[in-house]
Amino acid sequence: MYDKQREYTKFCFAFVYNNEEGKGGELMFDVVRLQINYHTLEQFKRFTENGLEELSMLDELHENMVENQVDSPFYGIYEDGTLVARMSLYPINAKYDRYFDPPRDYLELWKLEVLPGSKGRGLGTQLVTYAKSLGHAIKVNVRGQSHPFFLQLGFTPVKYDAQRDRGENPYVWIPNDER
Amino acid sequence: MYDKQREYTKFCFAFVYNNEEGKGGELMFDVVRLQINYHTLEQFKRFTENGLEELSMLDELHENMVENQVDSPFYGIYEDGTLVARMSLYPINAKYDRYFDPPRDYLELWKLEVLPGSKGRGLGTQLVTYAKSLGHAIKVNVRGQSHPFFLQLGFTPVKYDAQRDRGENPYVWIPNDER
Repeated sequence: MYDKQREYTKFCFAFVYNNEEGKGGELMFDVVRLQINYHTLEQFKRFTENGLEELSMLDELHENMVENQVDSPFYGIYEDGTLVARMSLYPINAKYDRYFDPPRDYLELWKLEVLPGSKGRGLGTQLVTYAKSLGHAIKVNVRGQSHPFFLQLGFTPVKYDAQRDRGENPYVWIPNDER
Repeated sequence: MYDKQREYTKFCFAFVYNNEEGKGGELMFDVVRLQINYHTLEQFKRFTENGLEELSMLDELHENMVENQVDSPFYGIYEDGTLVARMSLYPINAKYDRYFDPPRDYLELWKLEVLPGSKGRGLGTQLVTYAKSLGHAIKVNVRGQSHPFFLQLGFTPVKYDAQRDRGENPYVWIPNDER
């Protein structure tokens, strides 16, 4: 049963990937929602953007004595039991939206990161494709050299607003069926 | 006159650097507020975090036909006519403050970056020391491996708030005479 589910997920990704982005090649990786436990937090330490959020999660684990925290904002890809790519998605309520017109609920994408040894094989693309498959609009602050990456995935830069953006690079994406 | 001012600035930095941070060594670089013109925007392209803000500034230059935009949030250090380090400082009004108690006006520090060839000589420290010399509280989102850097400069992490911080690492600093 597990393997069938797994194969189906792969099939769906290959479908989205081939049709939406116009690229060939089968995607070989499963995106999973990460349970926050000591093992996951240990794996997080290998990522550059490990920070206060992860420390706070560790504190919560200590305090609550629970094994798994299931409402995690993190999604990731494992290879041979090792977490090699991750992202987080925060649901934002329309009343706090400052990017879409009219205001709407959306997902804010943060901490997209692929470990150095796993780069160049489309894992970042697959994570973002997964985020898009959830059916919500997405906002991301594009950093460093990642502008072409997000443009290629159908994101567009907003008109820069100095008061609101203060140095950020907000890009947005809305589901294809709304365009 | 200019040179005297310059020497005095260097002296002050050496003083702050030696006494506050407990490190020796004279600081040899001047921090200047950057005027936004075509030359500056060209130099910005060498920095990783060149993005929508800089593109928007270029648009404004085109539209307004002015040579220099003086109310720039950018500060930097030049070596032999080349901009080798920069940061931006955005004044935030107390009514938008979500980090200090009680709420207060503060500076938000962004885009602190030293070009690869100029790293390891204290330029980042000098920029932040300059920001502190302006006499306001400062908030920064600490990224990657920079946590020890900001701790050493007297910044402290805030208590992580998932709703507010969404993956950011907010660190704050308040002027010494208020402690």
